[in-house]
Amino acid sequence: MKIFTSVNDVTNIDEMVNEALMLKKDPYAFSHLGKNKTLGMVFLNPSLRTRLSTQKAGMNLGMNTIVLNMDKEGWALEMNDGAVMNGSSVEHVRDAAAVLSQYCDIIAIRCFAHMKNKEEDYSEKIINQFKKYSTVPVVSMEGSTLHPLQSFADVITIRENWNKKQKPKVVLTWAPHIKPIAQAVANSFSEWMLKTDVDFTITHPEGYELSEAFTKGAKIVYDQQEALKDADFVYVKNWSCYTDYAKIACTDSSWMLTNKKLEVTNNAKVMHCLPVRRNLEVSDEVLDGANSLILQQASNRLFSAQAVLKKILETK
Amino acid sequence: MKIFTSVNDVTNIDEMVNEALMLKKDPYAFSHLGKNKTLGMVFLNPSLRTRLSTQKAGMNLGMNTIVLNMDKEGWALEMNDGAVMNGSSVEHVRDAAAVLSQYCDIIAIRCFAHMKNKEEDYSEKIINQFKKYSTVPVVSMEGSTLHPLQSFADVITIRENWNKKQKPKVVLTWAPHIKPIAQAVANSFSEWMLKTDVDFTITHPEGYELSEAFTKGAKIVYDQQEALKDADFVYVKNWSCYTDYAKIACTDSSWMLTNKKLEVTNNAKVMHCLPVRRNLEVSDEVLDGANSLILQQASNRLFSAQAVLKKILETK
Amino acid sequence: MKIFTSVNDVTNIDEMVNEALMLKKDPYAFSHLGKNKTLGMVFLNPSLRTRLSTQKAGMNLGMNTIVLNMDKEGWALEMNDGAVMNGSSVEHVRDAAAVLSQYCDIIAIRCFAHMKNKEEDYSEKIINQFKKYSTVPVVSMEGSTLHPLQSFADVITIRENWNKKQKPKVVLTWAPHIKPIAQAVANSFSEWMLKTDVDFTITHPEGYELSEAFTKGAKIVYDQQEALKDADFVYVKNWSCYTDYAKIACTDSSWMLTNKKLEVTNNAKVMHCLPVRRNLEVSDEVLDGANSLILQQASNRLFSAQAVLKKILETK
Repeated sequence: MKIFTSVNDVTNIDEMVNEALMLKKDPYAFSHLGKNKTLGMVFLNPSLRTRLSTQKAGMNLGMNTIVLNMDKEGWALEMNDGAVMNGSSVEHVRDAAAVLSQYCDIIAIRCFAHMKNKEEDYSEKIINQFKKYSTVPVVSMEGSTLHPLQSFADVITIRENWNKKQKPKVVLTWAPHIKPIAQAVANSFSEWMLKTDVDFTITHPEGYELSEAFTKGAKIVYDQQEALKDADFVYVKNWSCYTDYAKIACTDSSWMLTNKKLEVTNNAKVMHCLPVRRNLEVSDEVLDGANSLILQQASNRLFSAQAVLKKILETK
Repeated sequence: MKIFTSVNDVTNIDEMVNEALMLKKDPYAFSHLGKNKTLGMVFLNPSLRTRLSTQKAGMNLGMNTIVLNMDKEGWALEMNDGAVMNGSSVEHVRDAAAVLSQYCDIIAIRCFAHMKNKEEDYSEKIINQFKKYSTVPVVSMEGSTLHPLQSFADVITIRENWNKKQKPKVVLTWAPHIKPIAQAVANSFSEWMLKTDVDFTITHPEGYELSEAFTKGAKIVYDQQEALKDADFVYVKNWSCYTDYAKIACTDSSWMLTNKKLEVTNNAKVMHCLPVRRNLEVSDEVLDGANSLILQQASNRLFSAQAVLKKILETK
Repeated sequence: MKIFTSVNDVTNIDEMVNEALMLKKDPYAFSHLGKNKTLGMVFLNPSLRTRLSTQKAGMNLGMNTIVLNMDKEGWALEMNDGAVMNGSSVEHVRDAAAVLSQYCDIIAIRCFAHMKNKEEDYSEKIINQFKKYSTVPVVSMEGSTLHPLQSFADVITIRENWNKKQKPKVVLTWAPHIKPIAQAVANSFSEWMLKTDVDFTITHPEGYELSEAFTKGAKIVYDQQEALKDADFVYVKNWSCYTDYAKIACTDSSWMLTNKKLEVTNNAKVMHCLPVRRNLEVSDEVLDGANSLILQQASNRLFSAQAVLKKILETK
């Protein structure tokens, strides 16, 4: 593997899940693999889980890890090829990516959507420019449209919690929020679900339809209770509108997930990528209840990152 | 030891001091102890000595160390249980602490007093919420009311500079400052002094009485010269009012410690936790004089931290 | 070597270049040298290449590396001896440097010119105070007047690209910029060139004369095309005025380096320290052309830093 920026960079999801579960049992078994290799983690946005789990994943593999908060410790990058750089950007991504490639064996990058221009966000310009100009493998630590390390951890978590023969019913449900949030986690979860052996439903208020590029094949149900019926896993996440880009079209607090709502499910496990707005997106009782998988998901972030880094180190 | 947030978490101070002095002689003797263990250092406030000494302490024990400037690289934490999170805080401490526990074997946290609400600051809500929701040991790198790693280093320093049979006379003297500073260092020094074998006096202008929770048993003297008489150690520190919370009640520059003032002491050694406002709290001549212990204190920060981390690693 | 803040700290440039080229061939040959040694990297300003290359250099030598963004994670330092610290600075450099020396075996520091007061900037007060009050070796990661790790990497790069008997002609050419930029890279490149075996010319518009302290012995030519004639290496860099300090005296875009301008050279290699303002300082065609050495320079930053750290570790 030379790139990890979406599910499409994974040849065999099952094999990757097995790899991650093997690493979870024995996290230091490959601590020789990263010796004298450097993981450069470039942040254009804040991070908690991603920062810690990815750094630890590198350390578990014996890598040297360098964190660069480009937005705070560095300077603004120019993303447009051919630009006359007489404005506020100090360095072209072409140079920054090529220079980072001199010092790092893998570059991991976090670059959120700016939520102002749909075309620009959905072009994944930043990650794509890094892919274009880096001479070493690039890993997404969340781009403007996708968050594959999270989705991979989610797939691992579902696998750990499902041992029946039939497919589990997985429902992604929209939840309220006070700010316009990117669609990245929802898009990404959808495209991973559609490539794994589950029965996948998305429920959200009208106007919150995600891009079909990521959801084609999913069942879309606008009635949350109908969608939740017989669910085995419920994944809660807010996102802002895709069509009327970055707008908040619904503030209906009845979309918050509660135990009452879960009654129609098949004793469903509940998932959220975190950070979660408690008692706005999901009630405390659900998050802290016996069926909550949120900490297991967070724990699996380490092993999804470690499996990806391991695969890349072995490929080079 | 599973927690280190005050002197009350230490069973035997003498034994801990001996441990630290042993580590000072041979800092790398236990570099196997932290292998494949991760120290997560969470900062909600700036730091120099604490950041470097604690990180180096972890490294000396062979730990992986991860620094997270939560206030800059992360986001605002919600501290109130049951809150409806429709405001500015992005993640609940319950989730943040539990998630950090997935990746870290020890969580160290720095969280200063906000200096606005006495009850809130003195409840040590942030550290206590971290203790409540972390599943791994928690170490204070300075809370809103205490700074135990500093006080432990101070105790080590006094031990290194006193080999007489009788108790040394230790005086904590207030010093002027232009900003309202927390009482944490003063509270903490007081509670450590009261548990060690010294004759302990506090001197400050009226109105600067510290909370009795930390000073009960200390001699309080309002006349600085009287207090300093025959002192063996003089610890200088500014703090703002506790009773009339966070107020500055005195700006009298004559409280600054000078060589002249030290004449009544028993050739006292002078201590300060740093950072120090030179020529405002203490004169240059004192800080740079032969009796100044400020650098020895800073040096011992490494070994107080290392002794604490070692004790925790051995306990787990 | 106990200090590395300018070319004057290097006894034998040729030997240092050979050292760096040896490390480039075998970067991990001395990974035992830094065992249990700590490199403290103190940043008062942003950084990309310097941060990553110096940290990696330390890691390659087996050092523990600690990064401290003093401007963001710490607080303001007082630089004036004897100051009454009743203003905005929180800690005196005397204490900060002495304390860092307790935890670090080498202190590396980046402190740009403030571009307001020539005398202050050119006194290199910050680096000099660190040199004065540190008890361990100090390395400049760019001061207000010099950037020796960059210049050393530039010398290495020229050596790698020149194997003829005669001296190469090296031209430092001024380039346009929209902001007042320090003279540090230009000063430093000049003083290194004047100590190595090259024919060195500087070209710039009138008013951009650099301090003779760094350029004495260089040929100054105001006509860029005349200067570029028969050049073997062209180093492009903007700087603001030294005499009329920090002013922008020329905005003439015809000073931008293009392929057309390079026609009079001896098929010159083109250098820039980065970050570069593309199509303002240099055209894309030049930077991305076959004769561009910019990435090789960046790559050599690692080995210039590693050679310096190695020399210091061996000296102590």
